[in-house]
Amino acid sequence: MFFVENLFLLSPTVMENPGYCSGSFDGLHHPSDDDDDDDEMVDIAGATLDFSTTDDVPPLSSGETSCSRAGMNGGGPKKLVDLLEDPLPGVGTYEDFNTIDWVREKSKDRDRHREVPDTKTCFFLFCVLLLALNAPSSPPGALAGGIDIAAHWLTDLKGGVCLIGFWFNHEHCCWTSNETTFQERDRCPQWQSWAELIVGNSEGAFAYIVNYLMYIFWALLFAFLAVILVRAFAPYACGSGIPEIKTILSGFIIRGYLGKWTLITKTITLVLAVSSGLSLGKEGPLVHVACCCANILCHLFTKYRKNEAKRREVLSAAAAVGVSVAFGAPIGGVLFSLEEVSYYFPLKTLWRSFFAALVAAFTLRSINPFGNSRLVLFYVEFHAPWHLIELAPFILLGIFGGLWGALFIRANIAWCRRRKTTRLGHYPVIEVLVVAALTALIAYPNSYTRMSGSELISELFNDCSLLDSSQLCGYKQPVNVSETGVGNSLADRPAGEGLYTALWQLALALIFKMLITVITFGMKVPSGLFIPSMAVGAIAGRLLGVGMEQLAYYNHDWLIFRGWCSPGADCITPGLYAMVGAAACLGGVTRMTVSLVVIMFELTGGLEYIVPLMAATMTSKWVADAFGREGIYEAHIRLNGYPFLEAKEEFEHSSLAVDVMRPRRGDPALAVLTQDSMTVEEVETVVDSTHYSGFPVVVSQESQRLVGFVLRRDLLISIDNARKRQDGVVSTSQVVFTEHAPTQPPEAPPPLRLRGIMDLSPFTVTDHTPMDITVDIFRKLGLRQCLVTHNGRLLGIITKKDILKHMAQIANRDPDSILFN
Amino acid sequence: MFFVENLFLLSPTVMENPGYCSGSFDGLHHPSDDDDDDDEMVDIAGATLDFSTTDDVPPLSSGETSCSRAGMNGGGPKKLVDLLEDPLPGVGTYEDFNTIDWVREKSKDRDRHREVPDTKTCFFLFCVLLLALNAPSSPPGALAGGIDIAAHWLTDLKGGVCLIGFWFNHEHCCWTSNETTFQERDRCPQWQSWAELIVGNSEGAFAYIVNYLMYIFWALLFAFLAVILVRAFAPYACGSGIPEIKTILSGFIIRGYLGKWTLITKTITLVLAVSSGLSLGKEGPLVHVACCCANILCHLFTKYRKNEAKRREVLSAAAAVGVSVAFGAPIGGVLFSLEEVSYYFPLKTLWRSFFAALVAAFTLRSINPFGNSRLVLFYVEFHAPWHLIELAPFILLGIFGGLWGALFIRANIAWCRRRKTTRLGHYPVIEVLVVAALTALIAYPNSYTRMSGSELISELFNDCSLLDSSQLCGYKQPVNVSETGVGNSLADRPAGEGLYTALWQLALALIFKMLITVITFGMKVPSGLFIPSMAVGAIAGRLLGVGMEQLAYYNHDWLIFRGWCSPGADCITPGLYAMVGAAACLGGVTRMTVSLVVIMFELTGGLEYIVPLMAATMTSKWVADAFGREGIYEAHIRLNGYPFLEAKEEFEHSSLAVDVMRPRRGDPALAVLTQDSMTVEEVETVVDSTHYSGFPVVVSQESQRLVGFVLRRDLLISIDNARKRQDGVVSTSQVVFTEHAPTQPPEAPPPLRLRGIMDLSPFTVTDHTPMDITVDIFRKLGLRQCLVTHNGRLLGIITKKDILKHMAQIANRDPDSILFN
Repeated sequence: MFFVENLFLLSPTVMENPGYCSGSFDGLHHPSDDDDDDDEMVDIAGATLDFSTTDDVPPLSSGETSCSRAGMNGGGPKKLVDLLEDPLPGVGTYEDFNTIDWVREKSKDRDRHREVPDTKTCFFLFCVLLLALNAPSSPPGALAGGIDIAAHWLTDLKGGVCLIGFWFNHEHCCWTSNETTFQERDRCPQWQSWAELIVGNSEGAFAYIVNYLMYIFWALLFAFLAVILVRAFAPYACGSGIPEIKTILSGFIIRGYLGKWTLITKTITLVLAVSSGLSLGKEGPLVHVACCCANILCHLFTKYRKNEAKRREVLSAAAAVGVSVAFGAPIGGVLFSLEEVSYYFPLKTLWRSFFAALVAAFTLRSINPFGNSRLVLFYVEFHAPWHLIELAPFILLGIFGGLWGALFIRANIAWCRRRKTTRLGHYPVIEVLVVAALTALIAYPNSYTRMSGSELISELFNDCSLLDSSQLCGYKQPVNVSETGVGNSLADRPAGEGLYTALWQLALALIFKMLITVITFGMKVPSGLFIPSMAVGAIAGRLLGVGMEQLAYYNHDWLIFRGWCSPGADCITPGLYAMVGAAACLGGVTRMTVSLVVIMFELTGGLEYIVPLMAATMTSKWVADAFGREGIYEAHIRLNGYPFLEAKEEFEHSSLAVDVMRPRRGDPALAVLTQDSMTVEEVETVVDSTHYSGFPVVVSQESQRLVGFVLRRDLLISIDNARKRQDGVVSTSQVVFTEHAPTQPPEAPPPLRLRGIMDLSPFTVTDHTPMDITVDIFRKLGLRQCLVTHNGRLLGIITKKDILKHMAQIANRDPDSILFN
Repeated sequence: MFFVENLFLLSPTVMENPGYCSGSFDGLHHPSDDDDDDDEMVDIAGATLDFSTTDDVPPLSSGETSCSRAGMNGGGPKKLVDLLEDPLPGVGTYEDFNTIDWVREKSKDRDRHREVPDTKTCFFLFCVLLLALNAPSSPPGALAGGIDIAAHWLTDLKGGVCLIGFWFNHEHCCWTSNETTFQERDRCPQWQSWAELIVGNSEGAFAYIVNYLMYIFWALLFAFLAVILVRAFAPYACGSGIPEIKTILSGFIIRGYLGKWTLITKTITLVLAVSSGLSLGKEGPLVHVACCCANILCHLFTKYRKNEAKRREVLSAAAAVGVSVAFGAPIGGVLFSLEEVSYYFPLKTLWRSFFAALVAAFTLRSINPFGNSRLVLFYVEFHAPWHLIELAPFILLGIFGGLWGALFIRANIAWCRRRKTTRLGHYPVIEVLVVAALTALIAYPNSYTRMSGSELISELFNDCSLLDSSQLCGYKQPVNVSETGVGNSLADRPAGEGLYTALWQLALALIFKMLITVITFGMKVPSGLFIPSMAVGAIAGRLLGVGMEQLAYYNHDWLIFRGWCSPGADCITPGLYAMVGAAACLGGVTRMTVSLVVIMFELTGGLEYIVPLMAATMTSKWVADAFGREGIYEAHIRLNGYPFLEAKEEFEHSSLAVDVMRPRRGDPALAVLTQDSMTVEEVETVVDSTHYSGFPVVVSQESQRLVGFVLRRDLLISIDNARKRQDGVVSTSQVVFTEHAPTQPPEAPPPLRLRGIMDLSPFTVTDHTPMDITVDIFRKLGLRQCLVTHNGRLLGIITKKDILKHMAQIANRDPDSILFN
């Protein structure tokens, strides 16, 4: 694994793999490191790198003026032009677990454009088109469809097997049978439970126990396969992946995180993990899967393979595609990408994301995994409008969602921290097996926990019709159906025996889901949070909804019900409560707002229910924010120490740049290079004696007037290369960053000219600049470091890590929790 | 009117009012200048301005260290703290037709937060809530409803009058009558045409002529009233307002543009202009109306009144509200604001905009102006799905839309330029009357041009059912309806007599609308482009749709129709073609993409038709972009010379900062102030001898090391004030920008200390910085100027205007067309 010398790494940080779910595979070598290094460019010795402009730039002739020359190569290092004819392999690339420089990457891309202007949008569109349209052959839409079908089959396999072909799932098996009627499509002779198959009997306690044991057996088998595969092939495949994708999109480099091994492993283990019955969903991981697809497609095009900033534009679109295929909500997907995941989201990406999300959604529909030929996962159609008074219970659901969200985040982070720091983390396989066994053991007896998360939500969202045989619709039938007629068939009815049983089971399921999700999320298997969160909210909502319904039925004359809830009227829809509850809980956990409401709106297709959803989501966010501003993804980012500068929160402390910059008062002076008075040996001494990843270049040590900035990595590569290839460059050669080498005695060795690798336009702020402005600049321009001046003299440097440490300090957190730069 | 000394105004620009539709009211005094100056703070002499922090900052004692002091007042000018105890009125404000400094405004707001942290979100939410919830009493939702109702009534008044009360419109008049049946709800004895009323006869040529003349009379009357009212009360009320709002949101100041006079005048004249039958819509102006409401509400809160940046956040939300109430499309409105109008749109605004847009949409629905209790303007429900082959005609419509959009923009800009530069512009009233007369004269005989734009679109979008009596549904009835049954009632049918007539009329209407809209948009009345553009597209689409339908009916056996368009099947929906055409034309004119598709999606409510809409919109944008990258709004912004830095287009020229900065080679040196070696008189000489609106402060003339930046306005106000109020400050007093005044001989007059008004953290770039990066910095940080350094020495300055001029030069346009800074 790669480990980085951080800029201003004053104390050695703990050397550990940062992934919260890969951290414990101690000593495990990541397979992607060797054969699937998506960002690897350095090790390919001698490979011809396409730094587009270099071929056309003639070697610098001494007669050229500064301006014309500078005009040609666009300001030096942005072009990565060395005075050597060929660009050096490795110059201008990044090491693993490092932050990219957005300005430099965007500038590189613009230089490229100037060379090949026609291919500009063409390439991007082609890439996105491939990503989206090629779905039938491999990418997100098709993968999502495949995952759905496979997970459905494996989930059913836990209960029984189809005699006419073990590859049929329960529903499909009974479809092929002619004997089944619509009413009993779940029961057919071809489908046999394990008890029937093994002991030839489907009734009685013994058969129940056989089924129970088989259920646990399959759950353990799937969970074991999932964790073993993740461990063996791609440690990065675990978790939801959204925290890491947020970090990567903000400009961090994690090699192999979006590689083909991760893609393959995550797809397979996601199916296994979902089928094992663990309390996790597949929606979050689908975003990771979509990003992997996009990243692999990007590798087909030089433009995206070579440019970290351009590639992140495609990844932003891919995140939208992921949510689009997960929920069948293209607009919601785009807003999710915009609001939650993306860091740098230019307007042109909006349109492309939207296009990609739509095409992916339609691909998914053509595969039709939900079997209802709908675009959406949970198709609902409610008959009754909602009443203003109902806003009160909706807001109550919002409060519940917010409280649960805040509690969940705290508990989950505490558990994950324990996993990281104690011996618990050393036994990931055993942990998964124990949780899977526990889940299966408790879940089986309760039909609402036995069914999969999405089935449960679907059932809870559903509105009861008269013919509905579900236990949740176990109302007492109206005595005289024929008299009251159809118009009343959906009216509020008193709860019957079945419904009361269902309510008890639901209440138990609620407690179970709330507890088990806390320890499940963060285990070493792919695990999404959307479905478990929504399930918790949907159960709570349905319980409240049925409660309200019964209250209204027995108290028509109460003031609050008068006028809109008369006897025989269909006034309260428990399914709507479930939907609102689901939105509230998901909002509390993730702190999504607009995108969540739009996703829910796209699930139902009616503007009518936006106001309840909004009221609940808003309340939930406010309540949860009162306990801590971070959503679950930000919390996990912080837990892992990634260098993520949150774009949503404003920096409100009144410190100045001078308070944050290094060197601090009392520290040794800033390590700088001078533009024309140091030898190769002196430069090497400065570089070797520090850990800094870059050095400012000044006119002279006395004046401290800033000329440029040079990166350690580029410097080392260039010196190394010059010693090997450039005639006469020895330790006493002068290192020259100016345009024209100063006149030297004739016997002196030839100078080493390094202006080409120097950034001639480093960002500077004055020492008096308030930190809020500095943080704004870092965020908006995507800076990696910024130099600090006072009255025109160089004073110090601020890096992204310095800012994050400063922010951690202000918030009374441990500044050393920021691990990377 | 206010005129500004532009930074680096080298040649005197034409002194004219910049508004393209107010430019010709020569000599007219704008009433808002006196009593409605929304940004006026300077002239209120002695008013206590709430520069929040000053009260708590003690006067500087000489013992304080640099750091602690700077830490307290947050870096000097950001706080606008003068050494005088009270802040000076006017310091930190802007003059009319000037660009704001976003960084400074945001910093001012953050300082305020530190003082009153609890009121933080509270204020904003309250403001947006007021804006949205108060709708029933005044703002956008209610205004939109009122405008709808009034315009409907006045439009009907052109045709006749209701006998039971002249204030009833046609539909309402006949509702109150009991005699009408559903079929003939348009005809009732209470409603009399003017011919009936005047000559007692509704048939025959004479009656027709009477009606014709009355129609023209009313049209002229309404148009005359509209233009006279605009001229008399608020010149800014004309046009659509979107170009100006885009410019204002990007950080420009136009006093009174969003004032109460503009609001009142625009609301009234919008009704009149729409009713006059001119080829214009009310959707664009509604965005202006919503922004006026928001701006006026902002004045209730100090936070927004005083802070230009915060106010623009509210205006962004208001733009979303405008589109939301215009089309009943809240999500589309938010995306419109995000994609098209807003410049600085932080994520927190997204949520608030969404909330405001939704509430406004629901307010509008509660007023129910469309009478169909739908949220949307054009409610459509299509029965047949579309087929992949139909993408070909949809793309054809896209090409038509793109071509028309590009042509329209060129023709309209040419016409507007002619109006600006020739005598035509001196007779705005006559121009409006002539165009209104021409429109009425030509429009009356053709029923499709006689009806209002939105009625026309509504009819064109409509799907024909068997019972439809509209001429557009004049198909030959199937011979044996009873035999084929209901299932076939919507099948493709052969066109009948009525439909052929309708097609001819539509073709003529298309040509008329295309021509008249070019000269109508930009006249001195409120005029929107959405409806006319959509009408053109809808007509073209319907024509193509009917053509396809007949082609399919007569050629079922063609290869392209085989399989999906068999006899008796309902395969082609002309209404869908109209919708796609409308989107294409609107896309061609405005270059909207995602927001347009989402608005159309919200109009129909079905994800099904997004792909046709997207195909057409995308084609349209591509085709139109081939003829010129600007949409109509950007074109009008450029026509008016506003300083608008487009965020969507990338700067691709390879120039450097040194090529753009002033002073150019050969110019006199940059006018700078020194930090402690100039007297008041010397400073005044520098200020008086130049027009620059700001001056860099350097350590000394020799070193040129940058200390800070001070604005002309602040400097003049401070010196003026000091001379009046501060004892002993005379012309020979030393001006001191340092923290501690240098020691002076005892007899010297007391120094004038101005560190308080100096910006201690001016933005700098190096001379080698590529302009693409510089432009990016200006856009993202909202800079007004940026200083250029070379090796730590001050070299020059770049202002927003310099950048715009440079961009104009690169594009071979006249750089002097940029009028403001």
